[in-house]
Amino acid sequence: MVAGLPATTPFVGPEALERRIGRTIELRLGANESPFGPSPLAIEAMQKQAQSAMNYGDPEGYVLRTEIARLIGVGIENVSLGAGIDELLGLCCRLFVDPGSRIVTTLGSYPTFDYVASSSGAVLVRVPYHNESIDLGALADSARRSGARIAYLANPDNPSGSWHPNDSLAELRRGLPGNCVLLLDEAYCDFAPETPPIDPTDLQVLRLRTFSKVYGMAGMRIGYIVGHADHIRALDKIRLHFGVNIVAQAGALAALRDPQWVADVVTKTTMGRAELGEFFRGLALRPLTSHTNFLTIAVGSRAYAEAILDALLRHGVFIRKPGHPPLDGCIRVTIGRPEQRARFEDIFRQVLTEI
Amino acid sequence: MVAGLPATTPFVGPEALERRIGRTIELRLGANESPFGPSPLAIEAMQKQAQSAMNYGDPEGYVLRTEIARLIGVGIENVSLGAGIDELLGLCCRLFVDPGSRIVTTLGSYPTFDYVASSSGAVLVRVPYHNESIDLGALADSARRSGARIAYLANPDNPSGSWHPNDSLAELRRGLPGNCVLLLDEAYCDFAPETPPIDPTDLQVLRLRTFSKVYGMAGMRIGYIVGHADHIRALDKIRLHFGVNIVAQAGALAALRDPQWVADVVTKTTMGRAELGEFFRGLALRPLTSHTNFLTIAVGSRAYAEAILDALLRHGVFIRKPGHPPLDGCIRVTIGRPEQRARFEDIFRQVLTEI
Repeated sequence: MVAGLPATTPFVGPEALERRIGRTIELRLGANESPFGPSPLAIEAMQKQAQSAMNYGDPEGYVLRTEIARLIGVGIENVSLGAGIDELLGLCCRLFVDPGSRIVTTLGSYPTFDYVASSSGAVLVRVPYHNESIDLGALADSARRSGARIAYLANPDNPSGSWHPNDSLAELRRGLPGNCVLLLDEAYCDFAPETPPIDPTDLQVLRLRTFSKVYGMAGMRIGYIVGHADHIRALDKIRLHFGVNIVAQAGALAALRDPQWVADVVTKTTMGRAELGEFFRGLALRPLTSHTNFLTIAVGSRAYAEAILDALLRHGVFIRKPGHPPLDGCIRVTIGRPEQRARFEDIFRQVLTEI
Repeated sequence: MVAGLPATTPFVGPEALERRIGRTIELRLGANESPFGPSPLAIEAMQKQAQSAMNYGDPEGYVLRTEIARLIGVGIENVSLGAGIDELLGLCCRLFVDPGSRIVTTLGSYPTFDYVASSSGAVLVRVPYHNESIDLGALADSARRSGARIAYLANPDNPSGSWHPNDSLAELRRGLPGNCVLLLDEAYCDFAPETPPIDPTDLQVLRLRTFSKVYGMAGMRIGYIVGHADHIRALDKIRLHFGVNIVAQAGALAALRDPQWVADVVTKTTMGRAELGEFFRGLALRPLTSHTNFLTIAVGSRAYAEAILDALLRHGVFIRKPGHPPLDGCIRVTIGRPEQRARFEDIFRQVLTEI
């Protein structure tokens, strides 16, 4: 099976780009890593825990799962930890997919999902973006037509930055065929105006969340999944029980106990996003509406977007761009700290004169 | 497929035992975690890196892989990182197994291998221990007879502690059928008298190593696999590229730069193992020969071994025991620091009077 998979990776890391161009990346604004870092409480907890790195982390993640369950109002039996949403997406595919099963997603949405779904043996059915946003109606239609076992939706979405309110998601849920599980990737949900209520009795929705974005812990590999206890128990049959590292568990627990940090990051991000949007509009470029910690900007054409990326990289600025139409004429920039944005804007202006 | 898997987990963690018995574990000697911890250089590197936990780790693990490759005398194209040997074993099973493929292992050897192999859809063919050691001849015979795609061998072995020298492994290699890959789990190889030379041109041997044991970083989830570049490239099609956390990468790199720490841990472990062996012999119990950081002791019967485990746990001592004959009448104890061993021996003597 693996022999038939393409030799592609979802993303090239900035470190590989540094090696390629032979210089250091000065502005790392391509992977939507939080420029504000983890909460100081989380850093302190991780530094303390590093001294006990010889011990395996609790395979049940009991303390952290208990705290997560309390905060979101479900039982501990509805929560499982994973080494980030990526790992949990892969496990879900293995859970629900038989060779040849259909999985519905959006063409050009989070490429790592396509990567893990393909390697599970599933066949991907990809619905195009509509008006630069996820087409919920087409997702449900496609799931029904193809008899999909899984529908994947990132809400807010990456790389478009678009978002759907609760009532639209409820309608999507009603439109799903009975055998189809919605994997609702909420990596960026902290930046959204609202998030659907969680119903842990619903066998057809699994919610995936992460400490990688607003919590500023992408490098730690920790996320969680929330859903029906039957699914959580099924994951227990295939997950790596000791796979979530002990430092990440300690950091995540401390991070949950610093909600003010999260609120501040959201405020600063929202403000920075508005300012960055103004900047691009001032250059006659068109930022898409974003409910995330990044901004996606239509610059005119794929070739022009790629030229911008290359030129920025020569100046030591790492950003990324969507790979598929209709968004392939866009670039995507993580919202940085004020001094990073100022520096980015200087370099970006310079780059436009060069290409 | 998952529905058919048993609802078992390879190991219950000491944290779950604490919750079960309602008291703290005082001596954590059940998971072969290094009682000496990580090198101070590794702790320092991890604490520093925790401040940049918002960044994903290098998906290519370039710097660490380069250093590993240099130290073991292969090319970087022969090395892949993983979140511990457990994750790499699972990936290898997915790489080589089709539904119904045969995998040969030893009945009662590392249970997590059986766990990940089963969930890949393979059928396990399990050869019994012979003289409380892995039966290399029977492994090769069984691989030939069953047409196995994978043979698994831990050398040194867990939980027996037994070990085979290089010439025996060479003979095993010669006995493997042409389509069978040997997964050589060398988690404990730093404690062994010798380790086979690495031949990265051999398509039929993959070596798996970890920072969890002698390096004292089990909680960090980082290990690596060494083998033919074709296999390493194939792993790149299914592995989680951002799955090895940034703090673990920094810690592992620093750990490699402190070989004296490793040598000291091996010396202290060897000394402690000899002393612990004397202790058990003094109680008319029979320690098996061990080339690891643990000692497995035949205590007479499965029931007696289980009674010892239960009684120790009531005293706040966590150890484990092999689950299958002929080793199920044994207990397994991690070699602790001198003060831990003294405390363990006191409690163990007490326990023998109680049961």
